[in-house]
Parts: sequence; structure tokens; C-alpha cells
Amino acid sequence: MKLWDKGLPTDQKIDMFTVGNDRQLDLVIAKYDVRATLAHAKMLHSIELLSDEDILKIENELNDLAKEIKEGTFIIEDQFEDVHSKIEFVLTEKIGDAGKRIHTARSRNDQVLVAMHLYLKDELSEIKSQVKELSYDLLKSADRYKEVLLPGYTHLQIAMPSSFGLWFSAYAESFADDLYFLEAALKVVDQNPLGSAAGYGSSFPIDREFTTKELGFTTLKYNVVAAQMSRGKSEKSTSFAMSSVAGTLSKLAMDVCLYMSQNFDFMSIPSEFTTGSSIMPHKKNPDVFELIRGKCNKIQALPYELSLLTNNLPSGYHRDLQLLKEGIVPAIQDLKASLEMAIYALKNVKVNNDILNDDKYDYLFSVDTLNELVMKGMSFRDAYVKIGVDIENGNYKPEKNTTHTHIGSINNLCLDEIKEKLKHFN
Amino acid sequence: MKLWDKGLPTDQKIDMFTVGNDRQLDLVIAKYDVRATLAHAKMLHSIELLSDEDILKIENELNDLAKEIKEGTFIIEDQFEDVHSKIEFVLTEKIGDAGKRIHTARSRNDQVLVAMHLYLKDELSEIKSQVKELSYDLLKSADRYKEVLLPGYTHLQIAMPSSFGLWFSAYAESFADDLYFLEAALKVVDQNPLGSAAGYGSSFPIDREFTTKELGFTTLKYNVVAAQMSRGKSEKSTSFAMSSVAGTLSKLAMDVCLYMSQNFDFMSIPSEFTTGSSIMPHKKNPDVFELIRGKCNKIQALPYELSLLTNNLPSGYHRDLQLLKEGIVPAIQDLKASLEMAIYALKNVKVNNDILNDDKYDYLFSVDTLNELVMKGMSFRDAYVKIGVDIENGNYKPEKNTTHTHIGSINNLCLDEIKEKLKHFN
Amino acid sequence: MKLWDKGLPTDQKIDMFTVGNDRQLDLVIAKYDVRATLAHAKMLHSIELLSDEDILKIENELNDLAKEIKEGTFIIEDQFEDVHSKIEFVLTEKIGDAGKRIHTARSRNDQVLVAMHLYLKDELSEIKSQVKELSYDLLKSADRYKEVLLPGYTHLQIAMPSSFGLWFSAYAESFADDLYFLEAALKVVDQNPLGSAAGYGSSFPIDREFTTKELGFTTLKYNVVAAQMSRGKSEKSTSFAMSSVAGTLSKLAMDVCLYMSQNFDFMSIPSEFTTGSSIMPHKKNPDVFELIRGKCNKIQALPYELSLLTNNLPSGYHRDLQLLKEGIVPAIQDLKASLEMAIYALKNVKVNNDILNDDKYDYLFSVDTLNELVMKGMSFRDAYVKIGVDIENGNYKPEKNTTHTHIGSINNLCLDEIKEKLKHFN
Amino acid sequence: MKLWDKGLPTDQKIDMFTVGNDRQLDLVIAKYDVRATLAHAKMLHSIELLSDEDILKIENELNDLAKEIKEGTFIIEDQFEDVHSKIEFVLTEKIGDAGKRIHTARSRNDQVLVAMHLYLKDELSEIKSQVKELSYDLLKSADRYKEVLLPGYTHLQIAMPSSFGLWFSAYAESFADDLYFLEAALKVVDQNPLGSAAGYGSSFPIDREFTTKELGFTTLKYNVVAAQMSRGKSEKSTSFAMSSVAGTLSKLAMDVCLYMSQNFDFMSIPSEFTTGSSIMPHKKNPDVFELIRGKCNKIQALPYELSLLTNNLPSGYHRDLQLLKEGIVPAIQDLKASLEMAIYALKNVKVNNDILNDDKYDYLFSVDTLNELVMKGMSFRDAYVKIGVDIENGNYKPEKNTTHTHIGSINNLCLDEIKEKLKHFN
Repeated sequence: MKLWDKGLPTDQKIDMFTVGNDRQLDLVIAKYDVRATLAHAKMLHSIELLSDEDILKIENELNDLAKEIKEGTFIIEDQFEDVHSKIEFVLTEKIGDAGKRIHTARSRNDQVLVAMHLYLKDELSEIKSQVKELSYDLLKSADRYKEVLLPGYTHLQIAMPSSFGLWFSAYAESFADDLYFLEAALKVVDQNPLGSAAGYGSSFPIDREFTTKELGFTTLKYNVVAAQMSRGKSEKSTSFAMSSVAGTLSKLAMDVCLYMSQNFDFMSIPSEFTTGSSIMPHKKNPDVFELIRGKCNKIQALPYELSLLTNNLPSGYHRDLQLLKEGIVPAIQDLKASLEMAIYALKNVKVNNDILNDDKYDYLFSVDTLNELVMKGMSFRDAYVKIGVDIENGNYKPEKNTTHTHIGSINNLCLDEIKEKLKHFN
Repeated sequence: MKLWDKGLPTDQKIDMFTVGNDRQLDLVIAKYDVRATLAHAKMLHSIELLSDEDILKIENELNDLAKEIKEGTFIIEDQFEDVHSKIEFVLTEKIGDAGKRIHTARSRNDQVLVAMHLYLKDELSEIKSQVKELSYDLLKSADRYKEVLLPGYTHLQIAMPSSFGLWFSAYAESFADDLYFLEAALKVVDQNPLGSAAGYGSSFPIDREFTTKELGFTTLKYNVVAAQMSRGKSEKSTSFAMSSVAGTLSKLAMDVCLYMSQNFDFMSIPSEFTTGSSIMPHKKNPDVFELIRGKCNKIQALPYELSLLTNNLPSGYHRDLQLLKEGIVPAIQDLKASLEMAIYALKNVKVNNDILNDDKYDYLFSVDTLNELVMKGMSFRDAYVKIGVDIENGNYKPEKNTTHTHIGSINNLCLDEIKEKLKHFN
Repeated sequence: MKLWDKGLPTDQKIDMFTVGNDRQLDLVIAKYDVRATLAHAKMLHSIELLSDEDILKIENELNDLAKEIKEGTFIIEDQFEDVHSKIEFVLTEKIGDAGKRIHTARSRNDQVLVAMHLYLKDELSEIKSQVKELSYDLLKSADRYKEVLLPGYTHLQIAMPSSFGLWFSAYAESFADDLYFLEAALKVVDQNPLGSAAGYGSSFPIDREFTTKELGFTTLKYNVVAAQMSRGKSEKSTSFAMSSVAGTLSKLAMDVCLYMSQNFDFMSIPSEFTTGSSIMPHKKNPDVFELIRGKCNKIQALPYELSLLTNNLPSGYHRDLQLLKEGIVPAIQDLKASLEMAIYALKNVKVNNDILNDDKYDYLFSVDTLNELVMKGMSFRDAYVKIGVDIENGNYKPEKNTTHTHIGSINNLCLDEIKEKLKHFN
Repeated sequence: MKLWDKGLPTDQKIDMFTVGNDRQLDLVIAKYDVRATLAHAKMLHSIELLSDEDILKIENELNDLAKEIKEGTFIIEDQFEDVHSKIEFVLTEKIGDAGKRIHTARSRNDQVLVAMHLYLKDELSEIKSQVKELSYDLLKSADRYKEVLLPGYTHLQIAMPSSFGLWFSAYAESFADDLYFLEAALKVVDQNPLGSAAGYGSSFPIDREFTTKELGFTTLKYNVVAAQMSRGKSEKSTSFAMSSVAGTLSKLAMDVCLYMSQNFDFMSIPSEFTTGSSIMPHKKNPDVFELIRGKCNKIQALPYELSLLTNNLPSGYHRDLQLLKEGIVPAIQDLKASLEMAIYALKNVKVNNDILNDDKYDYLFSVDTLNELVMKGMSFRDAYVKIGVDIENGNYKPEKNTTHTHIGSINNLCLDEIKEKLKHFN
């Protein structure tokens, strides 16, 4: 966040307005710009637009920069408007004209495009790994607690028997759906846009297959106008996938917050994930899960922010696109942090084994009892009347256990089949 | 839309409030409910919960209903709250208790879930076909007009040479990205949820693999709680994919509307797609493209509506979910209609061959001229100064053509490679 | 919703595409169009562009139409694209050229603008009345149940004593904030836009003050371009106000749904607002409140839909604006219906008087006990330690009542002051 | 933005996750917390819960802190989770137990609530001033350029004569509508919430009228639960008003960007607000207006982010609410900066006086010519035919000027009346 100082002269204000908080955001992009710059330079060398001498110098300097970035000593001073200017400055200062020549057949737009594609590709992959890790953990918890019954709710009313086995593994299978969207987004960003220059290509005979291979992209965005249009589109695609994950994780967090309320008392999480009060000893505020829920809900607004930014802009570059980073970069940080917290906390969750002992859960089993009578040959109508009467007379006393046998039910969780679904995403 | 009549008694108002416009929306769901009901009945027969006699009657009646639906004679009268009640009524009226017995081990929630999955699967497939058809057409137009140059804009300022070849095929390649999302959504909905009953499974020994096969689902949503959670999630997934397509189509429509303005005059569409005025003979209002743009922009708000509906609801069914249909069904109609209109209109677009004759486009080629000098050996700095001076002295007269050779550039459109990308989605 | 028939010829499809579902939506607009048309005709007569004879005929016919509309016999047949064409047709058919002459100095855009302003003004006023009625009712309930204590939650954890007095009146005071937005929206739509013609005014010497007075607008939107820009802006303004109301009502509904869960069991609503099950006799599904919540959540997406429709469109009319009605009209119906349902249902809510008897609410009062010790002179630290020890040793037994005296607290609800806030909005 | 360091131990990660970027955001809140803390302390003193000695010390220290904050030397170190902890720490360190006693009858939630209300009130007032300033400037420009004609567009097609007088003043009158929403939001935040404690009030006999007067609030939010609910609601109300302003400013910026394109060439802005290229001398990229547009479009997504955060949370505090600041604070900065930039740049805009000389604008006047014939007595039909024939034969040569006399038209702009509307908001 940039604080706007009232006493500044107009031109400095214009500068601050146009630069925004790019310097800060660009720190996460820096390493990708170095990588892409090196690939571009090597390509220029391969088509003889850079000399052997130039490429050596460039490679050395870029490797040094890469090291600085890795070690956290790289900074973007206030005189540079973004990471690209800073890197250009360093190169020119150190190796003179060679540093300028690497901009042959490339534009700033080009640089941002390719750096963002590389960045998004890395981050989507990491999010994918985290989602898989969390899902596998959920399957393990489902297995561990498969015998522990829970009331199942409809309309927030106590309805049917459920179990922690069902609850944990439901989220695992639900995350599998989000993985399809993460993969779709990965496909979208895994296409080399480098070479679109200002959005219409170049009259230089650049070799786009060279940079595609060098940067590890699976394919390239052939059409240079399409490559330019992927600015905004790749961010939106990423945000759809993130939104999908965030929706699932937010619901899980909502369940946890509810289930930790004393009015449910279904589970507890380790105390380092909660805050409390010593004069209200029962109070365990599920702060971490509330923040997971909140952050994941915010993330679901991201696609709309990106749509509003890009909507009804005709094709071609517009400066508005600079603002895309402000939304997507912190959202990615938030989603990754939320997933990491969820992984930590859910590993150590404790479930309450005696939930169903409470009388208010007695009627949970009335449908099962009814079905049993039907399967034994009583007509549905008679069975229904019988149970209604039993309940009314206070004669209904269920055995509080289930014998559900079908696929995906309490006593047949199909955890291996769900695991197979997850394994499909490698 | 339901108009709320002021004079009604309270209970009728409650009825209208809770039913909403489900009857109307359910007409598009009807055939899927019939199909799923038949599959469920056959499964019940296979596990001997329906007799041979029952299944025959049921099959006959459902086939009759399917015919009525196909012929458009099926209606849902006001006494029924939705399609499911109507079909249940017809069956019970015609075949008595057998009609009731098909509800064994099934709930209303179950019925809606499976019908919506089947519906969304069909519609997503159709949208996918349309997107592919439109993209192939765009590639054909790109090929036909590949020699016609256009100014390329950045910041809406005249910038670099572009071409209709680039413009048309850019959208084709951009739609390929949307296809990844359509496929992801298809994967999400192509999982049989039938058998989740009220969201927690059933104590009947139902055979969920039977219905999966019968209904042509590729796999099933194993976990019954996950199946229930797919209500809302499948709609949201569909809406992400639709949003992705709509974003691309909206931008294309914006370009068309701009390019048809007399201030650009780049292209025209057949007059049946426009409105005009005989005393303003130049006026060709691009109504159809404005409506495509508008409808596609509306569609991009759909995921947000669905998120707001489902967000922060704990797991388990809530009546709020009934409202999902109101958003998704008309949006699907709108997207399909927009794609169909775009396909029709773009087939017959006429491009202006002489755009670049206008003097205001002279400087388009200054970068190409500069690059040529550089490639002939002049230093970038000297070349830059020379062209600046030429322009200032009025000596800059470009040849208005391009010799861009690299992949995806004006003179090397890679239409076949883009076609390959599209073909990948079968 | 328009169902798209596959077999139709292209021009009919274009027609269906451009007309959309305007005919249906326009039924709610019809009476306003008649009113505005009459005002416009009288104005034309006043500046001698319509004869005495013409105006008589026009007035008669419009009065007839107004009657038909009121009685519900007015329909818009398929050959008309909207209500305006239908009315024009009727007038021309019945009174010949006089019917055409009323279009002097007016455009379709003008007609829609003024009709929508009148419509939104009426509906906003009605919503305002409903919000006030509901708020007054909530104050009455607060008074009636002011002695009934409730647990107050933070983080969904049992925290501090609250009461039904506080709970009911909190929503009343919260709705007062929404009324500011309803008033703001009313100010925005209560400005006569008629006379902007196609958005740039007219060379006819029309008298815009005449129509302003005739139509009961408080002022006019002077600038004709501003008048045109109010298309979209007036809908968005209305949607902000509706969104504000909907946010409050949705939260109230969420509380009701939660409090009706057996895990809380704080209140119940009349059975006609619920669904249930005779073999699960405790189950009272709060369907009406779930639908209020759902509809109000959907409404909160409306401003976003309208923003996406209008965003980044340069000034001047675009056909996209036709789609505004599709969003706003049903949302208004939904909000009014939701408010009406809430008014009915909350009048008859029953609260549970014995909530705090449950042990789990014992610690609610620990802070009050602590404060009491402090007020008696013990240091905070000593008091804190003492209560902590009492609780740990099981010696903490609170009197379950409160003596909160400050403004707005349990025992000093300030219902009259809140009522004054509401009365401010007349 | 917080970068998440991979090597950190779990508890530090939890700390970073829960604190977020509050420290940075809280710098803008700091002065309001100091002000509210002082008011609270004075009130405690007035009810004898703080001694004369205590209040003197507290006042001194808080005044010192206020000075530090004003001078920009106040910082929140990493060991404090937010501004409130930091201030508490300083006070306790300097004045011992007196520093702790100011927390009597107050909670963290209370502190954030009141500080945010004060902050939002200040910022809304400032935005209101800026909107008024910009609108007055627009009226001045309208007056200065009232003779300069512009083409008016419908469907982006050349349609009717307009003028810079109309264009500038249209936005001034349009901003007047936004001022209604700014005032509504101001009313919402101008209610003292202090005293709600954890959201349910306190058993201490606090004097809420004292703090209301001391802090300059017009009224108070009486009900303590309503006060707590204003967390989220006050931010959302602010965001609606900001969204309204942003929508208008974004459209203005879109017009500027379009009108600066060489295909329109209607106006230019000072070169310090643009970027360019010396070998494309005609290129003046309107970066500042593109960023105004982009930032204002982003702001329009804010209400949805806030809705998603708060939606479907039952009443009472939830930790999610901490995330509200992350959205609203930078958006306020962005809107203020955008307004400031627009004010600067529009003061110095240059308009093109000769736009209508271009032949393509000839037909603009055909409707005026038609109206003239009608006013001279020719029937509309005959006049229409005559002009149609003239145009077809190339005999239509308009005088390119207008004589529109009605209220709000080109030759009767009613700038004073619009000014009156703006003056209404003092």
C-alpha cells in the first residue's frame, strides 16, 4: 500500500500514481524476469543478433542477479518504476550496450507477460501439490475416524446419521473437482507468450520455439495478438481455479467453526490454532479457521475484480492491465498460506467420540429403522405409521449405529477409489 | 418471473414464495428427471425392490412422458411445485403404488442433483461444440483475410501493423484456452451423484454402479456427502467455464462494435444483424454484437451470484440451493444463443481492404523501418535518430506492408498449429 | 426465460435474440409508459405541436390502456418487440396519425428512461415502507421479549449474556442504516430524464418543466447527456440500496435458521413457514427463512451484474442497456416478497424462555461477576484470579441475570430512540 | 503484502497468518485509535473509574503519541500484532497500571469499531470534497467550451450533434448523484459504536453520550449488537458510495481514452499525464486516465469482496472481520488519488475546435433539419422523404450548428441549476 503524501509536487504524484505498488509486487516476479531475459538473450545469440561476447557477459550478470534474488538481497529502489527497469539498469551499468541489446525484439509488455506466465505456472503447481497433500490427509483422517458417528443435517436440522469418515473424505473428493480447474489453469499459463512484443509481433526473425524450450513451456501461444490477450486472461484463469479451491476450503472451515461451537462440540483443534480466555475456560476461538474462511471468501471475489478490470476493453494493450498484479499476487499468498494452515491444523484435530449419546440425536435413525421394516417386507405406509406411533408414544429407542453398505456410504467409504481420483493429477 | 399478487391469502403467498419460478425452469430439466427416474427404477428392480410387473409399468409411463416432453406437450400445472412432483403424480395416478415405490432409497435432493448433472453435462457439451465451430470459422476467416492489414493499437493509440489474419485467429486461439475450462467443468459434472439420498446415503443396498452405467456417467461421486456438496459446486464449476468463454466472446464483440464505428470503419456485418436509419444512411447499429457483449458480460457475474448463494453455508442441504437454477438456466440459454449469433454473423462479415490508405496510419511502420536498419547493421541508436529526423522533416514514407516471419506473426499465422490445439478437444 | 427453438430460420432467431424477454418484463413497466406518454402528449399540446383534437383522442385511449393494465387484461403479443411498440400500435390503430405524432421530440430511449425512473421510484418507496414496517415490528418484539436472555456469541463461541430484546432491536436499528441508501437511491431516480431524446436533446422547443411537474418528479436531470447516462446508473443506484437492505435481512435470516436448529433451539416460527417430517417430529425446516436468505444473497450480486453490463462503455446509448431490466425487475420482486414474508413470519415467532437453564451457558456471566468485584473496589488482577480459581474449583455459580444500565445495553434498550431514527424517514 | 517464508517454525507461521498485514494498514488507523482512547479515558474519569492522576498521565502520553503519528515517526514493530497492542504497550510502559485501566469496559473489537468509524467518516468527507471540486471544475470547462461541437454517438455510431459543454457538464451532474450515496454512507458511519464492548455491552455504568460528544459523532448506534454489526456494514456502506463515484469517474476516463485516440482526436491532455514515443510522434498514451479507469473499476469490485467476507455469518464477532481493512484502506487511497489526478489533468485538457469539419460528421444534423421542416409545417412523413432523397442525391449540406433551446440542451446548458444541485451537499 502506498501512502499518498499531501505535500508532494504534481509530477512526483503522477509518478507515484502510475507506478503504484509495483516495486513491492515485482519482488515475487523478479526471478522469472531474470529467467526469461536469459532465455531471450540466448535466442538472440542463436539468431546472431547478440555476439558470443555479449551473451557471456549477459549470462554472468543474470546469474548474479538470480543469486541475489534467491538470497533475498535484491531490492528495487525508488528510482526504478519496476523490476524490469531495475534489471535493465543493472545490466547496462555493468556491461554497457550489451545490456541494452537484449531488448532487441522485445517490449516491456512482452517481459511482463512471460514473467507472469512463469510465475503463475509455478504457483499453480504449488497450490496443486498442497491441495493433494491436504486431500490425502483428509482421507487418512477419514480412515482413522470412520467409526465415529455424527449427526447429518439438512436445513441445519438434525436429519440422518453421518460420520467423521464421511465428513473428512467428502472434502477430499470435493477437492478432486478443484484439481480439474487447477489443471485447466495450468494448461492456459503453460504456453509461451514471449515474442508478441508490443502485442503485434516483430519484424525481427526471432525463434520462438527456442525460448519455448529454454523456458520449459509445453507449447507456445502462437498468435501474437492472442499472446497479448493472455494478459488478464491468464490471471483470470488462475483466479477461477483458485476460487474453486477457496470455495471448498472455506466450506470446510465453516464446518470446523460450527462444529467447535459449544452448541455442537463435535471436534477441537490444537490450542496453538485458537485463542481463548482463562475466565471463560470453555472458549476456544477458532481464529485460524475463521481467517482461512475469510481469506478464502475474499479470494472468491478475485475473478470479479479481474473481470471488471479487463471487461469491455478492446483488444490491444491498455495500461489498466498493470493493476492485475495487485490482485493476484496477494491472493496467491493467501491461498497458499490458508492451505498450509489447514494442513497443519487438520492433522491434529480431535474428534468427540460420544456425540450421539445426547438424546436430541435419537430420531436420526428413524429412517433407517423404517427402511429395515420395509426390507423385511412391511409396506412403506404401514412401516411409516408404526414408527410415527412409536415415536409419539415414546417407544422409539434406536440402536445408534448404521449398516449402510452401498458405495460411498458410512460403512463403505471407498477411500481407495477417491484416492485414485486424486492420484490422477500428477 | 413471478408477479406477486397483492390480494392473495398468506398461505398462497408462502406457496408462491417457496415454489418461485421452478415450474418454468423445470421444463428444461424434465427430460433428465425422466431419464434418471427410469435408471433408478431399473436399479431397484435389479436389487429386487421393484417387481417385474412394476418395472414394466414404470418403463411404459416414463417413455410416454419422455415423448410428451420431446414433443413440447408436457406441462407443469400450478398445483405442482416442481417437475418432480408432477412426474410422481402422473405415475401414481396411472400405475398406483408402483409409482410411489420408485422413491424407495431416493430423495428430492437426489433427484435434482442427478437431473442437474445430466442437464449441465449436455449443455456443456453443446457449448463446447459451438466454441469449436466458432473457432474453426475464425481460422477460416483469418486465412481468407490474411493479406488485409489493420492498425494495431496500444492504449487505443495507433501503434503497430496488424492484420485481419492476426485478429481473427487470435480469438480462435484464445477460445482454445476456454475449452480447457469447459472440459474441467465437464469432468466435474460427469460423476453420478445419484444415491446420496438426503445427503447422507441410505440403508438400502442400492447399486450405484448400475445407475452410473445406465446414465452414461464416466464415474461416480463416491462419497454421498461430496455428492450432496456438488449441488452448487457443479453449477459454479459450469459458471466458471461459461464465464471464461463469455469473457472472450465479449471482447470480440467489443472489437466488432468499435471497428464498425465510422471512426474506425474496419468491417461491416450483414444488415439483418444491424439496425439503421434512412435519414442517417451511414448508421449501422451493431445491435446483435452489443447484445452478445451485454449477455456475455452478464454471464460473467453468474459465478459471483452462485458464490453468494452458497458461501458460508455449512455442509448439508439448505433450501437456498433451490435458487441455483434461476441463475444458471437462463445464462446457459444466453451463452448458447450468443455463440450461435456470433457464428452466423461472423461467417458473413465484410472487411475493409483499404484501411491503411489513410494518412493517420503512416507511422504504424516506423518500428519495422527501424528494425530493418538495425538488421542491415546500423546501431539501434543511430537508426532511431535517423527515423526520428525523417519523421520530423516529413521525409518518412513507409511501404505499407510487412515481412514478419516469426511464429505467430502477420506473415506466419500458424493457423494449422492453432487448429491442432482445437482438435485436441474432441 | 426464452427457450431457443432449434428449427427456426435465422431472421426469427435474430428477432428472438434481440427482443429477449422484454415483453414479459415490460408488463411491469406498462403503466409507467402510459403515464409518461400522456404527460409528453400534454406537453406537446401545450407548445402547440399537438392539436386540441389530438390531445383529447390520445388522452382517451391512454386512459383505456391504463385501465386494461390495471385490470390485468393488457398483453404484449409476439409481434411487438416491447411495450412501447405495442402501445404505439394501439394508438395508431385507434386514432391514426395523432398516435404517431406523440413521438415528436421523443425517442425509444427516452421512453424507457422515464418509465424506468417512475417504476424504480414507486418500487423504492414500497421497499422503504416495508423496511420501516418490519423495523417497527422488530421493536415491538424487542419490547415484548426484553426479559428473555440469550447467550451472545463471539467466534460462534458462547461469550456474553445477550437478550431477545437486544437481538430484535439490533436489526431494527441496522435497517435504519439501509434506509439512508434507499433515500439516496430515491433521490437519484426522482429526477425527470424525459427530453433527452436519443441522448443529446432535441431541436424542438419542448417544455421539460411541464413534464417534470406532470409526472410528479421533484426535479429534473437537466443535462440531456446526464439524463441518458442515468440509464444504468439509476438501476445501479437502486441495486446498491437493495443490496444494503438484503444484506441485513439475509443476516437476520441466517440467525433464525441457526437459532431454529435443535443445537440452539432458541426460537420457532409458525408451522406454515416450515416443512417437516412425521417420523422426525422434531424437524422444523425453516424453508421460508432459507429462501429469504438465498434471495437476499442473490440480490447482493445484482450491482455487480449491472456494473459488468455498463462498465467501460463510453458515454452514449448502447443496446447492451436493454439487458438491465432482466436483472433489476425480478430482484425487486424478490426483495419485496422476502420483506413481506419476513414481516409475516416474525410477527408470530415464538421464543424459548428457558435457554440459559442449560449448564453450558454458565460461564456467560463470568465477566459481569468480575466487573462487579472491580466496581466493589477489588483490583482487576485480583478479581480475575479469584474468578479463575472459582471456575477451576467448580465454585462458580452465576445468578443468571444482568444489570446492564448503559445506553443500548440489555437493561436499557433505548427502543424509543431507535424508533425516532426510523421515523426520520417519512 | 506479507511474504511467507518457507523455513519458519509453525507457531511463527500461525502468528504471521493471524496478524496478516494489519501493522501496515493500522498506520492509517493509529490517530483515530488515540483519539478514541482519550475520549474513553475521559469518560471513565467522569464516572470515577479513573482517578484525576490517571487521566492526566494518560492524556499526556496520548498527546505525545498523536504528535508522533502526525510527524510520521510512529511505527508498529513486529512484536505487536496491531496498533492497539502497540499503544497499550507504550502506555503501560510509561505510566504503569493507569495504562491498563483504560481498558476497563472496552474490548479490542470496540476499539477497532470506533477507530474505523472515525477513519471512514474523515475519508468519506474528503472524497466528498474532491467530488465536488472535480464537478465544479467540470462545470467551468463546460462553460469555457460550450460553443465547441462534438459528434454524439449511439451504439458507437455517429448520431446527433453534441458539444463539449454538454459532455463536461453531464459528468458534473452525474457526480451529484454519487454525492447522495456519499452522504448516506456518512450518515451510517457518523454513529458512535463505542461501548459495545465484545458486542453485547458491559455491566459497567459507562456514559456513551459523553464519548459521542467528545468524538464529534452526530448520534450513536444505540443498540450494542447493532453497533457490533456495523463492523462490516460500515465498510460495505462506504464501498457502495465509493463504487458509485468510481463508476462515474471510470466512464469519464473511458471517454477521455477514446477521445484521445487518433481515430477520434477530440481532445488532448498535458504531456506529463501521458507517455509517448519519439519515432511515433503522434502517440500520446493516456496512461493516467487508463489507470484512473483501472483503479475505479477495481474499486467497483470492493462491495462484492466485503459481501463475500461477511455474508452468511451469523450475528456476533468473527475473526474474518479483521480482513475488512485489507480491502477498504487501499481502495480509499486509490479513489482519492484517482480523483486528485482527474482534477489536475482535466483542468488542463485541450479540446479540438474543428472536429465537425470532417465529412463523416455531415449527417449528424439530419434530424435537426427534419425537425425544422416539421416546425415550418411540413408533415413528418413528407419531411422525412425529402431529406432521405436529398441525402441520397448528395444534396444534403448541413449548416454545422445547433439551435437547441430546451432545458439541458446544447444551447441551454443550465450550468447554474446543476451548480445548485452540487451546492446542496455542503
